[in-house]
Amino acid sequence: MTFQLDVTVAWGDCDEMGIVFYPNYYYWFDSAFHAFTGARGVGQRAIRDRFGALGTPLVDTGARYRAAVRYDDRLRIVTDVESWSRRSFRMRYAVMRGDALMVEGHEVRAWVVPGPDGTFKSAAIPDAFRDALA
Amino acid sequence: MTFQLDVTVAWGDCDEMGIVFYPNYYYWFDSAFHAFTGARGVGQRAIRDRFGALGTPLVDTGARYRAAVRYDDRLRIVTDVESWSRRSFRMRYAVMRGDALMVEGHEVRAWVVPGPDGTFKSAAIPDAFRDALA
Amino acid sequence: MTFQLDVTVAWGDCDEMGIVFYPNYYYWFDSAFHAFTGARGVGQRAIRDRFGALGTPLVDTGARYRAAVRYDDRLRIVTDVESWSRRSFRMRYAVMRGDALMVEGHEVRAWVVPGPDGTFKSAAIPDAFRDALA
Amino acid sequence: MTFQLDVTVAWGDCDEMGIVFYPNYYYWFDSAFHAFTGARGVGQRAIRDRFGALGTPLVDTGARYRAAVRYDDRLRIVTDVESWSRRSFRMRYAVMRGDALMVEGHEVRAWVVPGPDGTFKSAAIPDAFRDALA
Repeated sequence: MTFQLDVTVAWGDCDEMGIVFYPNYYYWFDSAFHAFTGARGVGQRAIRDRFGALGTPLVDTGARYRAAVRYDDRLRIVTDVESWSRRSFRMRYAVMRGDALMVEGHEVRAWVVPGPDGTFKSAAIPDAFRDALA
Repeated sequence: MTFQLDVTVAWGDCDEMGIVFYPNYYYWFDSAFHAFTGARGVGQRAIRDRFGALGTPLVDTGARYRAAVRYDDRLRIVTDVESWSRRSFRMRYAVMRGDALMVEGHEVRAWVVPGPDGTFKSAAIPDAFRDALA
Repeated sequence: MTFQLDVTVAWGDCDEMGIVFYPNYYYWFDSAFHAFTGARGVGQRAIRDRFGALGTPLVDTGARYRAAVRYDDRLRIVTDVESWSRRSFRMRYAVMRGDALMVEGHEVRAWVVPGPDGTFKSAAIPDAFRDALA
Repeated sequence: MTFQLDVTVAWGDCDEMGIVFYPNYYYWFDSAFHAFTGARGVGQRAIRDRFGALGTPLVDTGARYRAAVRYDDRLRIVTDVESWSRRSFRMRYAVMRGDALMVEGHEVRAWVVPGPDGTFKSAAIPDAFRDALA
């Protein structure tokens, strides 16, 4: 895949069974997404300034857990864009420990712009955003 | 569904867009699961004491987000067991704000018992656990 | 004290020792603060709409831990304003399990208004905010 | 100070004001503590295996916030042991962004060993632990 975020699992990421409390994997997916877009010059601030968009809120997320991860484990969160739709796109994630796939997941994100009264609404993804993540 | 956990969304649950940072929904799913099993007398401590099991770690999780949730919103996390397999089971979740479905999700959980050297391995779910959540 | 927030400790709030991972106490302090101000009509949205302020960011926080708390424990986070300064105020917190004091803490919060270029700066606390929390 | 942990602030670490939600600083303090002790060969697993101890739960924590931190900011959490008592010790932390001190804090941690019935009790800190962090 295209981008990689390194994570060392902290004591506070684990539960009483001594394994990662699973919502943290989604935190790492989200962190990898923002690190990836930031590295390509289309991070959250750029989205607002360049495109007048508000962000990329989630439509659908999921993960499959293949093996237990413990504190001090060094992980790589690898990611790229799996597919594009007109108003949304799907990210895929693989959590690797060395050569072993520990967790795999996805996020479907919408492109949203300001709507009336502080709300937001979906809109077509600008080509420049798509190109930046290719 | 069978069980309900009430949650008021806190300031700290939201991100800069002013909506819930999505890993928190999984925290609420997990909290509802433990509250449900605890209310039925088969919570985490009972699993260990009565069944000699270690817990119910996750195999697969997912969520679909239908509408934005903000701080101070009062949510009900409603849940029940969607299906049973021999060694795992699938929970379903609906996050309601009033009558509106905001988020729906699932967790597939395995039943695990102690393995060699501090590890764990999957095992058949005891009938008494299944009956308690019926 | 003046206000109380009930919390049931979740599985995900605890670490491998089986006790609350301590940053969560601060999450509960902050949640109690927002619940308290909201209940008095001067929550975060009111602060912005009525007073043109941005919020009450932290200047200083602290906690003392007297006894271990575990999942399923039912806690009351009790709070009030301990003292007022012109531009800041000090909240105190007691975390009770039944009649036992488990944790005590404080937050010093500043009153801030918009500054130049998206920053913020401290300002005098409006009387109406102070009166509402009396 | 003696040890440094690098952190890049994630989108999910910030609140609706766009600044770090403050309990996260304590998560970073705790993460730096475990990284420091691990790097010196006296991490949590070593504490259990070599010394028969359970861990170093918190007695007292605190932080002062000097400047606002936002997502994508690169922080260094620098730390060392500030002082030793017979049964506890005090860690100090400085959160730096470049040369600027953003947050400073402390943790007082006890040394605990197994007590009766799954509880724990404080005990004298072994010399080897103290020496390792010097």
